[in-house]
Order: sequence, then structure tokens, then C-alpha cells
Amino acid sequence: MPKGKPEVVPDDGLTTRQRRNRPLLAVHTGTMKGKSTAAFGMALRAWNQGWSIGVFQFVKSAKWRIGEQAAFQALGELHASTGQGGPVEWHKMGEGWSWSRKKGTEEDHAASAREGWAEIRRRLAEQAHDFYVLDEFTYPLHWGWLDVAEVAAALRERPGRQHVVITGRNAPAELLDAADLVTEMTKVKHPMDTGQKGQRGIEW
Amino acid sequence: MPKGKPEVVPDDGLTTRQRRNRPLLAVHTGTMKGKSTAAFGMALRAWNQGWSIGVFQFVKSAKWRIGEQAAFQALGELHASTGQGGPVEWHKMGEGWSWSRKKGTEEDHAASAREGWAEIRRRLAEQAHDFYVLDEFTYPLHWGWLDVAEVAAALRERPGRQHVVITGRNAPAELLDAADLVTEMTKVKHPMDTGQKGQRGIEW
Repeated sequence: MPKGKPEVVPDDGLTTRQRRNRPLLAVHTGTMKGKSTAAFGMALRAWNQGWSIGVFQFVKSAKWRIGEQAAFQALGELHASTGQGGPVEWHKMGEGWSWSRKKGTEEDHAASAREGWAEIRRRLAEQAHDFYVLDEFTYPLHWGWLDVAEVAAALRERPGRQHVVITGRNAPAELLDAADLVTEMTKVKHPMDTGQKGQRGIEW
Repeated sequence: MPKGKPEVVPDDGLTTRQRRNRPLLAVHTGTMKGKSTAAFGMALRAWNQGWSIGVFQFVKSAKWRIGEQAAFQALGELHASTGQGGPVEWHKMGEGWSWSRKKGTEEDHAASAREGWAEIRRRLAEQAHDFYVLDEFTYPLHWGWLDVAEVAAALRERPGRQHVVITGRNAPAELLDAADLVTEMTKVKHPMDTGQKGQRGIEW
């Protein structure tokens, strides 16, 4: 855990306070579990600050992180009823983006990902949230469904104080270049190696 | 994310279901951020299963993960009032373990860590929780405050279905040997490299 005095003090004309409060673009990548899990852990801290949380899940999947979703929706309802923490919105691609019609077929996934990104870009422009989780967003980038250069530029140029965490394998180099923080989750040992399958409460 | 069919099907006499439901001992180690964050993300899923969550924070620190603590206490209160999710207990070493007298001096930290571990060992024997986070527990092991062999044996031999996640740098080899799942968080790029300090809502 880096803490205390940074090794480098940049000549960027910013005060320590200004530099401290720069909004972050973080990418969690690598082949191992924990990328999304760590992003949702960060979102807990953000919620506790009273920040508006927006979660956008890409890649239609049987595994929609229902545990995290239920917990964050409970936290969002707690905010609505008591004022503690911040508001929470949770959107899933396909089945479906809440602002979009539902789509059923495999072929529509690329179009659905583009609609999702267009919505996120609108929200970034409007400064709709303080903390975004773009879960598994690297895949539509990696697969060429979205224009990486356009996405990286929109993220770099986002206004105000909006933090963004992006998760997924195979993060493109242009996205890593744009990021302030990149963490790679590396497998050292995993129960799948000895034939154990995923289990409720642990994997989802 | 490993999913689907394991590469190896072990000859251990267990059914897939029995193997699937073995309790896990997970260790998050490495020099990079995200170790504890990912552990608390896992705890969200566990909470949503209605599991009893016990968090035990080792190493007295100015940085007590107050964001996660506030969020989990809110989830624990939600459980108490509505029955959603599971109960949550959160204990901090020194200032202090709630079952122990408060201690103020640096010299008492090793004794306090030993008291904390003794309490956890009792709870494991009683099957008090379903999901334990032993946050920064590698340090008292690494520093020789606790007997690593005794800790590893107690964890290996814990009864029932109790999941344990341990975080911190410098995890001793005997602990890694006992673990089912080891994840290493590796730094690729961090804003501290360019002189940015930690900020509220992101780092704590």
C-alpha cells in the first residue's frame, strides 16, 4: 500500500491538494479473479462518501454479480430512506440497459455495447455520477465493438471530478495509457487447479 | 476468470457438489493496493447469501478502512432490521478488540495481535461466522508475533463450512501452503509514481 510521501513531486503547477483530488481512471486487468471484486470494494468507500455510484455491466453473462448488485441496491435504498451514503444505479447490458429496449440475440451484443457506451459518454458529459464502475468494459474494446481511441479520449477529457474504474482482461494499450492506476491480478494458486468448481457466496 | 469445467478432476472420493462446497482459505498478497478491497468485495457476496460476516483488522493504523466499515455496518443494521443479507461484526486491534481492554502503547501490539488471534481461533472452533476477513493478518505472522505453524494448522483444521480471507504483504510460505486460493496484486501503474497522494473516497 503506497502511503505517505510520493517519491516524485511533479512540476505540474498544481498544489498537493489539487493533485490529491484529481479524479482517477483505474483499470483492473490480468487473468485472475478479483478485478471486479476490487472495483466493488472501491465503490463501497465511494458510497460512504455520499458519492453517486453508477455501475455499468458489459458482456452478457450468466454471472451478473448478483451478490454485489443486491448489496449495492440495499445500500442505495438505505441512502434513499436515511440519507446515509450515496445513491446507486446498476445497469446491465442486453437484459438490459434500462434506458434501452431489451435484446435477445447474440448478434445484438455489439450494438448493445455501443448503446451502453453512448449512454456512459452522455453521463460523463453531464457529470451524472461521482464514481463509475464499467465492469468487463475491456471486452467490447478488445473485440473491436467500440473505437478504443474515441473511448480513451472521452475518458481523458471527462469534466469535473468523476472517478472511473474499468475491469476486464486484455485491456488495450491505449486504455492503459489513459489510466492513472493500473492493477494486474495474477494467479498464484486457485482451487480450479485441483478440480474445485465455483460456489455460491464465493464466486457469485 | 476461471469458469466451467476444471482442467483436472481429482481422485479424492468427493462428488462435484462436495468439492464445490468445500470452505475456502484465500490469501490476497503482493505489494499493490487492492488486497483488502477485493476481500471486502468478496464479503459483499457472502453478506448477500445471508452469511455471518466477521471482520478482524490487525495492525494498528491511521487508515482503518472507515468507508468499508461504515458500509458493512449499514448492511449489518439492515440485516438486523429487515432480515436481508447476514449479520456483520467488525473488530479492530488495539483501539480495540471489543472483547479486550483497550491498549495504548506500541509495545502492546504483539500481545494485542495474540489476543486477537486467540479470539478468532475460539470463533473458528465454535463456527461463529461463515465468512471471515482477517485484514492485514500477514504482518503479525511475518513479524513473528504469532506462531505461523500453529496458525496454519488451526486454519487447515477449522470445522464446518467457514470461509477465511487473509490479506497483507509478505504472506509466509506455510500460510500460502495452507491456502486454497492465493492472489497476488501487482502494480502496473500508480498515481503515486507521478506524485499524487491518496484521496478521500478512493484510498479510505
